[in-house]
Amino acid sequence: MTASRLARFFAPRSIALVGAADTSGWAQNIMLSSQTVGFSGPLIPVHPRHKEVFGQPAIPSLRQLDGPVDLAFVLAPQHAVADVLDDAAAAGVRNAVILASGYREVGDAGRDLQDRLIAHAVKHDITLLGPNCLGYVNAHARCAPFGFIVPPPLTAGPVGIVLQSGALATDVLAFARAHAIGVSVLASMGNEAMITTTDVIEYLIDDPATKVISLFLEEISSPGEFSRAAGRAAAAGKPIVALKAGASPAGQAAALAHTGSVTGDDAVVGAELRRLGVIRVTSLEELLATAALLGHARHPRGRRMGVLTTSGGACDIIADRSAAAGIEVPEFAPQTIAAIQPLLPPFASARNPLDVTGYTLAHRRTSALTPIDHALDAAASDPGLDFILFGGIRLPDARPANEGLAGLIEERLDWLAGRIASAPVPVIPVNATCVDISRYAREQLTCRGINVLPSIGLGICALQNALWWVENAGRAAAGRSQPAPAQPLLPAPASAPDGPWSELAARQFLAAAGVPLVPAELATSAEEAAGAAVRLGLPVALKVCSAQITHKSDLGGVELGLGSPAEVREAYRRVRAAGDAIPGAQVDGVLVTAMRGGGLELLAGVTMDPTFGPVLTVGLGGLWVEILRDISLRVLPVDPAEVKRMLNELRGAALLHGSRGRPRADLDRLAAVVCALGDAAVSLGSSLRALEVNPLWVSGGRVEALDALVVTGS
Amino acid sequence: MTASRLARFFAPRSIALVGAADTSGWAQNIMLSSQTVGFSGPLIPVHPRHKEVFGQPAIPSLRQLDGPVDLAFVLAPQHAVADVLDDAAAAGVRNAVILASGYREVGDAGRDLQDRLIAHAVKHDITLLGPNCLGYVNAHARCAPFGFIVPPPLTAGPVGIVLQSGALATDVLAFARAHAIGVSVLASMGNEAMITTTDVIEYLIDDPATKVISLFLEEISSPGEFSRAAGRAAAAGKPIVALKAGASPAGQAAALAHTGSVTGDDAVVGAELRRLGVIRVTSLEELLATAALLGHARHPRGRRMGVLTTSGGACDIIADRSAAAGIEVPEFAPQTIAAIQPLLPPFASARNPLDVTGYTLAHRRTSALTPIDHALDAAASDPGLDFILFGGIRLPDARPANEGLAGLIEERLDWLAGRIASAPVPVIPVNATCVDISRYAREQLTCRGINVLPSIGLGICALQNALWWVENAGRAAAGRSQPAPAQPLLPAPASAPDGPWSELAARQFLAAAGVPLVPAELATSAEEAAGAAVRLGLPVALKVCSAQITHKSDLGGVELGLGSPAEVREAYRRVRAAGDAIPGAQVDGVLVTAMRGGGLELLAGVTMDPTFGPVLTVGLGGLWVEILRDISLRVLPVDPAEVKRMLNELRGAALLHGSRGRPRADLDRLAAVVCALGDAAVSLGSSLRALEVNPLWVSGGRVEALDALVVTGS
Repeated sequence: MTASRLARFFAPRSIALVGAADTSGWAQNIMLSSQTVGFSGPLIPVHPRHKEVFGQPAIPSLRQLDGPVDLAFVLAPQHAVADVLDDAAAAGVRNAVILASGYREVGDAGRDLQDRLIAHAVKHDITLLGPNCLGYVNAHARCAPFGFIVPPPLTAGPVGIVLQSGALATDVLAFARAHAIGVSVLASMGNEAMITTTDVIEYLIDDPATKVISLFLEEISSPGEFSRAAGRAAAAGKPIVALKAGASPAGQAAALAHTGSVTGDDAVVGAELRRLGVIRVTSLEELLATAALLGHARHPRGRRMGVLTTSGGACDIIADRSAAAGIEVPEFAPQTIAAIQPLLPPFASARNPLDVTGYTLAHRRTSALTPIDHALDAAASDPGLDFILFGGIRLPDARPANEGLAGLIEERLDWLAGRIASAPVPVIPVNATCVDISRYAREQLTCRGINVLPSIGLGICALQNALWWVENAGRAAAGRSQPAPAQPLLPAPASAPDGPWSELAARQFLAAAGVPLVPAELATSAEEAAGAAVRLGLPVALKVCSAQITHKSDLGGVELGLGSPAEVREAYRRVRAAGDAIPGAQVDGVLVTAMRGGGLELLAGVTMDPTFGPVLTVGLGGLWVEILRDISLRVLPVDPAEVKRMLNELRGAALLHGSRGRPRADLDRLAAVVCALGDAAVSLGSSLRALEVNPLWVSGGRVEALDALVVTGS
Repeated sequence: MTASRLARFFAPRSIALVGAADTSGWAQNIMLSSQTVGFSGPLIPVHPRHKEVFGQPAIPSLRQLDGPVDLAFVLAPQHAVADVLDDAAAAGVRNAVILASGYREVGDAGRDLQDRLIAHAVKHDITLLGPNCLGYVNAHARCAPFGFIVPPPLTAGPVGIVLQSGALATDVLAFARAHAIGVSVLASMGNEAMITTTDVIEYLIDDPATKVISLFLEEISSPGEFSRAAGRAAAAGKPIVALKAGASPAGQAAALAHTGSVTGDDAVVGAELRRLGVIRVTSLEELLATAALLGHARHPRGRRMGVLTTSGGACDIIADRSAAAGIEVPEFAPQTIAAIQPLLPPFASARNPLDVTGYTLAHRRTSALTPIDHALDAAASDPGLDFILFGGIRLPDARPANEGLAGLIEERLDWLAGRIASAPVPVIPVNATCVDISRYAREQLTCRGINVLPSIGLGICALQNALWWVENAGRAAAGRSQPAPAQPLLPAPASAPDGPWSELAARQFLAAAGVPLVPAELATSAEEAAGAAVRLGLPVALKVCSAQITHKSDLGGVELGLGSPAEVREAYRRVRAAGDAIPGAQVDGVLVTAMRGGGLELLAGVTMDPTFGPVLTVGLGGLWVEILRDISLRVLPVDPAEVKRMLNELRGAALLHGSRGRPRADLDRLAAVVCALGDAAVSLGSSLRALEVNPLWVSGGRVEALDALVVTGS
């Protein structure tokens, strides 16, 4: 799907509506939507039986076109679609949107139909969006081959929107209208039989009108392509914001390894989006507010925010929300305070966040600028602030009848637009509560290029997202060009059974991969165990060693802290007996291992995600993982720097940094070991089902795997 | 402040505007707001110099009134207010709103002025709202002595609103208008010099038009009164929803005890609101959406939600948000599926959450009801559902020009209003994204008593809040009548110094209060220590005992796990020396205590909150508190049942319930001990600064304080 082909697809100057009839809501919506965006090209109804549709003459087939149209919107029922494509090809039509359902989404029979549809389109060299899709809107190209309602007016602007659920489009566009958020292209993807979500992202990266890309995703079907597109977007400086919905059922390999039980697929998606520098949001409003901020406003360079409002309550709410979002509201500089104080009533004080108070609004207006505007000039020059959140735009529902007053309002907006464009730091207007801006406000603001964040809550949320993007996009862009690390050359494992390996085999495999393990010996008698214990140094742990026994401790197959040879001998007999009692278990012996104390225990494991492949999980051992689910995930491969970021994401990270007199863990060494473990897992290829070290012990610079589990399968 | 007096205050039939002038924005707003709510009584301008205000004849003083008005809105500047009150008294005016600022909010001088103002009002038997306040709006009584803009139209309804920041009013009312949320009274509280927030809450509890009370709070100045009002509201079945902003600086006693460093005042507020059954929210939109749901809709009886939408994407988002909010979306019953399936296109399936698909909207409408309406009938009868979230109301921006279509839409709304009123379970309409409803929609919905939740996000949030209230309000109402427990009769502590007690004194105090302590003896020589260790059972811990040394372990004043008399003797010398090395410390000796292992360690402590008094904190010991801040708080006193709830609120509560083979803690025993500790703290009265047991050890039914800290002061 080449860029030029998609650019033509998304900017038709003539459209045929195949299957349009007066009774079709879809066709009616296309007519209305086209009117809303100001489509000026021909919109030609095509219907085998109707002579007239919506009062326009209709032709019976695309073959009757005078010349080719740029795009056919195919409303025809499924059984007629193939013939319509034949007609299109005959008429020289190269682009089509297919509305009909009943393809891949209904199962195997539909999938066959879809495959045949695509083969047909490819044969005719037709570029196709859908099937089972509503089409798209391109506000800049002023076309809307789109089967749902586009609430008028639509503001053309920087936000590209890709929806894997097209039925959301009207609600998304209604919110965009409510806040005059400028849209470039909105596309409903349907079944993505030919043009995929990633294709549209790539197109929007190249589209000069689009500055930010917002996605509603139900699935990421080609993670590799998605990852490349995200990298290109980051390199192009175009943020991607995604609402990814729906967690799919946990992978089947999860049950055996503990990692699996805490690694939901959704968490993998979250980790991967974070790694790619994609902003993840949880509502459509947050999606659009974030995109609007990134698309319309200058990007803040840091987290120090100046706040100007007309209400103490708004200051309180902004302060609380900012603190929760990690946005700072520092004191104003002395010269800022000196400049602002004279603007305020005597009972108010010039501090950040600033409440200029309702009193400043209470007198009949005689000049364009109000005290909050002068405060803006002062705050925007404050050297200690990175951006200004400006709560001072409050426009009436309609243009005042009083021409003088209307003139003052509009003169002020001219001034404000100039300040927003030229202020030393970004000035970001915000509305207090999430209500629609009026038609008057939309007209006045849009023509001056001013966009107002929808509400304090959404505004702070959007700022938090934008700041995260500013801080992380560079890395995401850099990460893109990084080649996947070469797979380590490991000795082929002695056996790669369908199922879990014995701990001994797992230990040997990890050791070969460069993962340090706690010293251990396999004993097959009580005497051997006692001898090993003395060689390893008392106290020791004993663990039954068998590929068939994975939950050893639940079965009495583990004993810890054995302090004398006599204790070891007795423990050997109990542990061995516990293993021998398991039906069908082949017991290799009993593993005698040194004990480790002090330090910290972690979990490091790899599971297979059905979409993304091998996924690394790290967490602090024991309760941190079991009760708090305090883990960090990444799709493999990773490098040691990324593992360090994973470790620092943990809520318990302070433990690694040496809290309360505990020794600081050597994160470089730890990250190197975890990386080696990840590479070992990757080297098992598609036979990997799970690999886990739990606990992975660290004390200062010493790192050792105290246990090892490997599960493979076909 | 009697109920009847407030009822008269909030429903005046005639109002004087004292100090009104054509140039006053405040006065203009009162005129406009009065018009918006349909005030029909006289609105009399009073001004010493202007003969005419807003085209109406003005009188020079209240003394020139023909007869008393019900309320005077005093716009006069501060220096004139006392005279205006004299005039009001002379004219028989008994109620006044005072706009002027410059009182308590500006410091001590203002506080004096305010005290004199109130004395003046009391002398004249005038009920007064303010000063420094904007007044109020009463939508049912159709009056609006209110100095800010009330965006028209205002829908009268069940939601009472009390704002400690009046300047938020316009934004709050704009959101209410946007979603046709019905308002009863909105009051701006100002300085609360006479009528307090609690007074207005009490009035709204008695006001038959108010069904739910929403608050914007900057402070809770009288926690006792607030608590009583909350209890009365709960007993009356009127939910309170509060946005409490602004965390005040941590109390000064906090630094000495560890509890203090993790107990912010804001967390205390949160705990107290939870205990009182008050819903706490974080945005104005959530405040109003929650209040609207509780005021307009029937209350759900459980958490099992049926979902009906026209979009798969909306289903995805609702499913994700519900899961996060603890709201269940169970399978439909077989008969529900059987009833719904025939309504859907063949490619769609009848499952909860239900997407009837855009296809059901695509054909020209010929009957009032659409497939989603029939699905509603089926789902509302499903025995496995507690309520229905209905995403099927989608009204056009304006009444369709086509009368037939408009008739169908309105016929459907009649049907829907009937179903909402009569369905077996509550039916709760929801909008997809947070956009204003149109004027047409407002008119059509309001006249039928239908309210639509503003958006999926706010809707799920409001439902989560409402369900919490339904589940907790009964307890809050019951808790209200519970008398504070009698203070335990404790022996007066041997010494109640200004500062920390020695651990020995703290132990004796707690023991007398019924808190079990780990056995210990005070030793003053190495030999005594060794002897004590043998009596207590080895291994033991040694701790230097001195009122002046509070962070013992940081100074080498603690040694643990001493396994032999020889070790104890050596440790004694080190610990003692560490204590003796502290300048100014009077060392009583060294405390020898038994060691406890296995089991769990908790923290239980009491600090003094400047607003609420003694506050109990419980948490799991060590890292849980230090790194995770995993604590639960309550204002004292508490009973053992409340302590059990506190323990179960902890994220680590699973540990207490015996996770991974650990013995289950006896929560009854543990709660009784914590309760005794709380009562001991309360018995110290206002001299208490901190009391803490850390760790409090529990193993099955054994509970022991392993350490004890008491700090008192004047």
